[in-house]
Amino acid sequence: MDPATQLRALPDDLALRIAVEDFYARYVEIADDPQRLEVWPDLFTEDGQYRVLPQENWQQGWPLALVRAESRGMLKDRVSAAQGINTYTPRVMRHLVSNIRCSGGSEGEIETKACFAVFETMIDEPSRVFATGLYRDRLVEETDGVLRLREHIVVLDNDLVPNSIVYPL
Amino acid sequence: MDPATQLRALPDDLALRIAVEDFYARYVEIADDPQRLEVWPDLFTEDGQYRVLPQENWQQGWPLALVRAESRGMLKDRVSAAQGINTYTPRVMRHLVSNIRCSGGSEGEIETKACFAVFETMIDEPSRVFATGLYRDRLVEETDGVLRLREHIVVLDNDLVPNSIVYPL
Amino acid sequence: MDPATQLRALPDDLALRIAVEDFYARYVEIADDPQRLEVWPDLFTEDGQYRVLPQENWQQGWPLALVRAESRGMLKDRVSAAQGINTYTPRVMRHLVSNIRCSGGSEGEIETKACFAVFETMIDEPSRVFATGLYRDRLVEETDGVLRLREHIVVLDNDLVPNSIVYPL
Repeated sequence: MDPATQLRALPDDLALRIAVEDFYARYVEIADDPQRLEVWPDLFTEDGQYRVLPQENWQQGWPLALVRAESRGMLKDRVSAAQGINTYTPRVMRHLVSNIRCSGGSEGEIETKACFAVFETMIDEPSRVFATGLYRDRLVEETDGVLRLREHIVVLDNDLVPNSIVYPL
Repeated sequence: MDPATQLRALPDDLALRIAVEDFYARYVEIADDPQRLEVWPDLFTEDGQYRVLPQENWQQGWPLALVRAESRGMLKDRVSAAQGINTYTPRVMRHLVSNIRCSGGSEGEIETKACFAVFETMIDEPSRVFATGLYRDRLVEETDGVLRLREHIVVLDNDLVPNSIVYPL
Repeated sequence: MDPATQLRALPDDLALRIAVEDFYARYVEIADDPQRLEVWPDLFTEDGQYRVLPQENWQQGWPLALVRAESRGMLKDRVSAAQGINTYTPRVMRHLVSNIRCSGGSEGEIETKACFAVFETMIDEPSRVFATGLYRDRLVEETDGVLRLREHIVVLDNDLVPNSIVYPL
């Protein structure tokens, strides 16, 4: 926290921070673009975990998740399935990811926490808050020099997010 | 994306990133301050373009915009006109601009993309989501060393933003 | 604003900016965690001021605040009192703090401004906007090398924020 100390420690930390901020900017850009839904799983590692769960389950350590995928392959399956669903009214989703914190984890991983709000807009209706919560993620830089999610845990403030199965959080 | 590469490339990129983040912090501060509405056009270049259009129009390449101004002068006229309108209930607008991405464009321009949410608060009513969407902007550093918008394209998630003619987005 | 100038001036400013961004990331993390409510006053200096007031009062210079605490001790009392209130329906709060600006103030203080939105989620109800507004703060680095709030002024866009007495803003 001491500015002088931070300054001396700056280069590595700063490069990390920038890479992480850029990652989330890219994440939200892709997550909210229906035309690039197939690209979304590529933001995860091959063994990437994706879990969406209510805050209570997280706090109590309950493993029960609303959504769970255990690999990039499962995420790709999810995307294919979601694209086959035409019963939902078309809508636009918009993520805001803010107040990102990152720290070094084990095995070269980067642990991050961030606040998010996702807004939903349906045709001819006012935009509304779809979901809010915390990301509790682990990122890793792979051999191609690209940061990817090894774990993306979406802790929801709400128990009920009806279409969370269809839209990336 | 490789932290080591980023680090070597850091100085210029970092200065740019900081200048761009500061620009948007200043943008929202002015856009949301009714007392400084006249200053808002000064955030644009003399030939600055301002367009507000629904996402569908943007995606389809349709030129139709809900709001369009072709110069700083037109923006100043808009502001004068808006200040003459007293038929609207007083309200406070609040922008959150997040997940800013920037890259070098042609002719020294900086191309930026950012997510935004604007909230509206009327007296004695709860705050609500006014609009969400993406900025797709071109910034340029002018000879006075100040960054300004050569193009500010506001791609709305919603088709209908009733007072978007009156309030800066 | 000139990138080249900024670059030369970078080290100190950048360390400051990073420390301030980290401060607010930590602030929202603690403010939104009911389990860490007692830690919230520790984000203030011993003589830290906390005020929540509507925008109109701020603009007119009226001293009237919805909430006012004049020291860390008073904040601790507030927290204890809030924890004794069981009449409210349980809910989760979520802050997004964005577009932070900081500048050097007098006596080593850092003056900051930031936009915020706070969302509220009650069980079995959709999340909603709780409050939006501006922070107008003064931070100071104390002898332990930690940044703390000497003044945290929450200027609300709304006059009416019913539970603002209970939840940290």
